[in-house]
Amino acid sequence: MMHFASDNTAPVPPQILAALARANQGYAMGYGNDPLTLRVQSRIRDLFEAPEAAVHLVSTGTAANSLALALSCPPWGAVFCEADAHVQMDECGAPEFFTGGAKLVGIRGDHGRMTPDALADALARTGGSVHGVQPGALSLTNVTEAGTVYSPDAIAALTTLARARGMACHLDGARFANAIVATGATPAQMTWKAGIDVVSFGGTKNGLMGVEAVVVFDKARAWELELRRKRAGHLASKMRYLAAQMDGWLDDGLWLHLARQANAMGGRLAAGFANHARPLHPVEANIIFAAWPEGTHARLKAAGAVYYPWAAPAPGEEAARLVTSWSTTDADVDGFLAALAG
Amino acid sequence: MMHFASDNTAPVPPQILAALARANQGYAMGYGNDPLTLRVQSRIRDLFEAPEAAVHLVSTGTAANSLALALSCPPWGAVFCEADAHVQMDECGAPEFFTGGAKLVGIRGDHGRMTPDALADALARTGGSVHGVQPGALSLTNVTEAGTVYSPDAIAALTTLARARGMACHLDGARFANAIVATGATPAQMTWKAGIDVVSFGGTKNGLMGVEAVVVFDKARAWELELRRKRAGHLASKMRYLAAQMDGWLDDGLWLHLARQANAMGGRLAAGFANHARPLHPVEANIIFAAWPEGTHARLKAAGAVYYPWAAPAPGEEAARLVTSWSTTDADVDGFLAALAG
Amino acid sequence: MMHFASDNTAPVPPQILAALARANQGYAMGYGNDPLTLRVQSRIRDLFEAPEAAVHLVSTGTAANSLALALSCPPWGAVFCEADAHVQMDECGAPEFFTGGAKLVGIRGDHGRMTPDALADALARTGGSVHGVQPGALSLTNVTEAGTVYSPDAIAALTTLARARGMACHLDGARFANAIVATGATPAQMTWKAGIDVVSFGGTKNGLMGVEAVVVFDKARAWELELRRKRAGHLASKMRYLAAQMDGWLDDGLWLHLARQANAMGGRLAAGFANHARPLHPVEANIIFAAWPEGTHARLKAAGAVYYPWAAPAPGEEAARLVTSWSTTDADVDGFLAALAG
Amino acid sequence: MMHFASDNTAPVPPQILAALARANQGYAMGYGNDPLTLRVQSRIRDLFEAPEAAVHLVSTGTAANSLALALSCPPWGAVFCEADAHVQMDECGAPEFFTGGAKLVGIRGDHGRMTPDALADALARTGGSVHGVQPGALSLTNVTEAGTVYSPDAIAALTTLARARGMACHLDGARFANAIVATGATPAQMTWKAGIDVVSFGGTKNGLMGVEAVVVFDKARAWELELRRKRAGHLASKMRYLAAQMDGWLDDGLWLHLARQANAMGGRLAAGFANHARPLHPVEANIIFAAWPEGTHARLKAAGAVYYPWAAPAPGEEAARLVTSWSTTDADVDGFLAALAG
Repeated sequence: MMHFASDNTAPVPPQILAALARANQGYAMGYGNDPLTLRVQSRIRDLFEAPEAAVHLVSTGTAANSLALALSCPPWGAVFCEADAHVQMDECGAPEFFTGGAKLVGIRGDHGRMTPDALADALARTGGSVHGVQPGALSLTNVTEAGTVYSPDAIAALTTLARARGMACHLDGARFANAIVATGATPAQMTWKAGIDVVSFGGTKNGLMGVEAVVVFDKARAWELELRRKRAGHLASKMRYLAAQMDGWLDDGLWLHLARQANAMGGRLAAGFANHARPLHPVEANIIFAAWPEGTHARLKAAGAVYYPWAAPAPGEEAARLVTSWSTTDADVDGFLAALAG
Repeated sequence: MMHFASDNTAPVPPQILAALARANQGYAMGYGNDPLTLRVQSRIRDLFEAPEAAVHLVSTGTAANSLALALSCPPWGAVFCEADAHVQMDECGAPEFFTGGAKLVGIRGDHGRMTPDALADALARTGGSVHGVQPGALSLTNVTEAGTVYSPDAIAALTTLARARGMACHLDGARFANAIVATGATPAQMTWKAGIDVVSFGGTKNGLMGVEAVVVFDKARAWELELRRKRAGHLASKMRYLAAQMDGWLDDGLWLHLARQANAMGGRLAAGFANHARPLHPVEANIIFAAWPEGTHARLKAAGAVYYPWAAPAPGEEAARLVTSWSTTDADVDGFLAALAG
Repeated sequence: MMHFASDNTAPVPPQILAALARANQGYAMGYGNDPLTLRVQSRIRDLFEAPEAAVHLVSTGTAANSLALALSCPPWGAVFCEADAHVQMDECGAPEFFTGGAKLVGIRGDHGRMTPDALADALARTGGSVHGVQPGALSLTNVTEAGTVYSPDAIAALTTLARARGMACHLDGARFANAIVATGATPAQMTWKAGIDVVSFGGTKNGLMGVEAVVVFDKARAWELELRRKRAGHLASKMRYLAAQMDGWLDDGLWLHLARQANAMGGRLAAGFANHARPLHPVEANIIFAAWPEGTHARLKAAGAVYYPWAAPAPGEEAARLVTSWSTTDADVDGFLAALAG
Repeated sequence: MMHFASDNTAPVPPQILAALARANQGYAMGYGNDPLTLRVQSRIRDLFEAPEAAVHLVSTGTAANSLALALSCPPWGAVFCEADAHVQMDECGAPEFFTGGAKLVGIRGDHGRMTPDALADALARTGGSVHGVQPGALSLTNVTEAGTVYSPDAIAALTTLARARGMACHLDGARFANAIVATGATPAQMTWKAGIDVVSFGGTKNGLMGVEAVVVFDKARAWELELRRKRAGHLASKMRYLAAQMDGWLDDGLWLHLARQANAMGGRLAAGFANHARPLHPVEANIIFAAWPEGTHARLKAAGAVYYPWAAPAPGEEAARLVTSWSTTDADVDGFLAALAG
């Protein structure tokens, strides 16, 4: 079988199991009061060049995003996000639940990237009267839902508009590592140096069992975040097992190594489309949207390819979303391309 | 060091690490759509003799309890729980958050066990007028916060009162295994046969890294529970790693074996108090509240004992909460008792 | 001055003051347990030919709509409404607050009327997976935000689609009387006979100080509505003063008489535009959107006209929203038209 | 009939109807942007000697209290109130709804007055750990539920403790006028000079149809309060009719005159108990709790007395809550006392 359904269907690399085994020695105080959690928090602060950032681990991306948005947007605020953003389309209203009923406002993007003009238009229509929701937060996603990537400058162009209206800026980094690899930016350049206040630093889609870090650059918000996490049932009592995974993942740049492989496989896939498929968005990381002639699905399925079909862009065509991961191999890609070529 | 701080400070047994390694083979569909999750759900249904129960895994006890209560109690309802219940005192208002603002009403218990009389009194003062909150849910905890245990009959005496008022009944089973071992009841006897509608079936305090199952006996509520879980950020994308732990834990009765050891060590501890300490509550499982003469804390601390001090019941005394776990050894207990004896 | 800013800027007719004075005799039990409230509830049931409907009075339209939606849509549901609907644009997220965080999905309409095709498209994209919000409620507005009117058949075409998906259907009737007058339909035809489950029956914009009735046709929901109303601070202790207003308003068809005047003045205004202004939407009730040449605002303002300017549809134009009410006179309209003509 | 059921069963004095009639002239901008609302806000600021206070009118006491608490306490906070406080017992969880799930902690009082010792005890058990709710707000009620009154000094003794923990302090002044008359304190002395941050300044129980003012002394919170009011459906579009009532009520000290009569009648009632009844709490304002021999209820009912029976304090006794209002007359009281004497 050739698996391109999602980067969350892959196993975890052996280093992560080894890190869990190492952490499983003797007793450790609960709720994050253990040395390993403290060490990982410190490592993440170093990684983001943010010595005073609050770093809190949770087990899902939805939790990370929703806690970040609850910290950023009051109940009467609008969260501006790209129209197809995960927080808008794929979290069953979790941001609304965590924020106490904020309104998510979808902004049409260009290949998944919100444009400054579209954001400016939406902001111009928001606020100033008690009758409407108020400017609340900006939420960007990098890698975007379309598989494209924001540069730090592109992020800054959007956060500048938001900050001028007093809004907090959130980055959904479920595929943060892939975005870092794709752009060559540092974590600091991609976040606080570009105007981001809080980031969901994702590990789950890049080789962990289920660990994300919420990183808040304003240390004054740390306690509120801690209380919100507890209240949402996301304060793990045996935190060491979340910390251990992230610790092993940060060792020797493993997290970047994994993302590099995922992105390389995405590129290899797109490069091999030849005239058998056409990408629907620029392929910049590890998500590929492709269109191909009717009948191709059947052939790929017969060959053992697993992926999500997508809405066909034109009559006579079929489309698909393909996601590569750290565990995708050259052989997986080449097998897929061979089946695609028919 | 001798660790009696909590059962969540212990490591996990090697079988759990082995189960994770076994589960880490190849690709698996996300969000619980993998064979291992389906298998574990089925095993838990068998265990509870409830072939139609909905079984949903989450990573924390607070999440399990809060989701169960949100399923059981409307926003305008009262949740009746023992005055010191975890849901009331130790979850930072998570049940209020998940229910949309229900009111938790603490009922004074007898050594941690709510009495039918006290519940009847509270129910008699609730409902019938639009001005007050309405009868919502009953939430019991077994093992209780005082370390005592409800028998199935004791549970049934309370749920009968609650069900007569149309209320749903929840069991916080963070230490469900310890209660099963202590009473000899079956899971079915302890829950639905005793009037329980939904149970938080806890694994974390009994040898897992962080896995609890919410078991709902009315299958008609399954979909709502699934939506609430997702919306709270508790739908793990890589569910197989939660399922794997619980699968290994159910193998060969490991879960009962672990709880039996924890309870046995609790009993050994209390049995060795002699005239050096006195238990503040009946010791029936793995939580022991003890009082001893002033000065004992210092001696125990010097000997390497770790535990939480408690409010002294009388002048000249000190008190402590001691929790044993699957990893507590005879040597740990005997070392503690030796230090206690001075 | 000529007032066309809103129908909520008008005074109330003398009959309403008289009704208040009549109700102000002696003692009356609070919270709706007074004879006058019971009488008004009964009259409204008769009016809607719905002998078992629950009828609850509140003081604002936002409260009526939000309570109706909270009754209709779970927290994880989508409320489908026209893109410019009051519940979406003008209530500062009140529906999100009352529902516990539902998501309002704006459907583009045709001159303010949602089209069945657009609704069908949106429904086809909703539900079936735990990741997105679920079909929750349909919310229509009659008179629409564009000043147009739904016929009962047009409502039924939409509710049929919604009910096929198990959704509840709400009608925001802030200007219900104007819609009744415009269509000649009966209240029953406009609501439950056309598939509506709950209606906000508005009095405030049509001559009352601040009274709306939430009418729910399924009597099984009455108690929940009562609890939600109380919990939202909308259970008036001296209910008789809300009931009195609505009682006076229903006497001798006053409510229809007032709406008839408002609609007639809307028609007179549009009919007098000649070539000095053009309506932007069909004028069917008492809200008129008009475009006219640049410079007209200044002339109208100088003449004492009060109204809200609107976004100009084309260069060289200006636009306005004009609202007539029961108290608008022929002289007001003719004065405005004279100033418009210049 | 002799009505002592509640002060919300009385009619309104003629001055209030006259004020409504005066306000019903011509057009007025909606949502509080009318001269009368501005004037009333200004008058209330003057009354409280608080030139920068935010003053927002709402139509119910539950709304006023809940908005005030939402402004004062985060979702993860505890609201400390007397055990029988209206916000705890009689608002169907409205404070929980408005705050987003805060926890109300009942503090046992002495004849309805919270004692500093009891508050200090509760505060000592709150906060400092992420597991419990945090110190949020203090909510006092004056006149208390027991009909007693706090002096400004008694309030200050409690707010001092709360403010030392960083908590905001709320005063439920549903019967504020009665407390002012009973103590002779000024509004400023009773509120901000005694450490109160936000007060529900009640008119409904003292002669209005349904108007309360939320007065917030920190003007920086005004906008949040306005948004919360709108979002809760409590921003009246025709605000002039709320303002008019309060305007008439403040004219010539009418509000104090009405309260003086209510309190005087309370005193007359208690003074006439002789040996036929005994007060259960000190009678300091217009609420009287009385116990009398079994059989008295029947005699009083036969004589036409209306009131709420209460829990009997001792075998052989019956008890009642009696409330006097501005419209209670000497004849009402004397008739009641005659029937009581039998």
